[in-house]
Amino acid sequence: MSETFKSQNFQREAELAWEHADEGIERQIYGYDNRVMMVKVKFEKGAVGSVHEHPHTQVSYVESGVFEITIADEPQVLRKGDGFYVPPNTLHGALCLEAGVLIDVFSPHRADFL
Amino acid sequence: MSETFKSQNFQREAELAWEHADEGIERQIYGYDNRVMMVKVKFEKGAVGSVHEHPHTQVSYVESGVFEITIADEPQVLRKGDGFYVPPNTLHGALCLEAGVLIDVFSPHRADFL
Repeated sequence: MSETFKSQNFQREAELAWEHADEGIERQIYGYDNRVMMVKVKFEKGAVGSVHEHPHTQVSYVESGVFEITIADEPQVLRKGDGFYVPPNTLHGALCLEAGVLIDVFSPHRADFL
Repeated sequence: MSETFKSQNFQREAELAWEHADEGIERQIYGYDNRVMMVKVKFEKGAVGSVHEHPHTQVSYVESGVFEITIADEPQVLRKGDGFYVPPNTLHGALCLEAGVLIDVFSPHRADFL
């Protein structure tokens, strides 16, 4: 991965494309290089981020809304201002209880998102 | 760095300690392991995150407020919903124009914050 693999320095929400991620779920790609990638994920109420795993570390912030987040079979309800950490290769999923946004950050970056 | 170096899986805003970072600036530590660390940084209006650099990649999200962010001598005004990327070893700083919060993520983690 070359050092020139990276996003622009500034991201403006109004200019970033929205991508369909899953039913009721859309995302925008924020800053990234080979080490790390920030993604905004918008959920409609009732949308489900199915249980899955990946080799990346994930750290997330609840920007708005209410979510039931399950990590390694432990579910917890998180609200705006809370956060969570997903170790590499650990099953996790999200159920949106009130429409909102997660700020997900992956390390290394998600090549499958580009 | 052992694999057991990591945060709890869930972070609740109300339970996280606030640390004094600089004049008018406080922070809370969210999820982390050796690869990555998420930090919430709350600024009062007029607070200055002095220009500095570090070997970590940084990706940030403007959770609220308005900031003038300078990266490699280029200043831009960013608002809630915008974001920025700071390459490793690149001078950057922040001036808070309206009180708000940045979600800063560093890769690798900031050992100096623990």
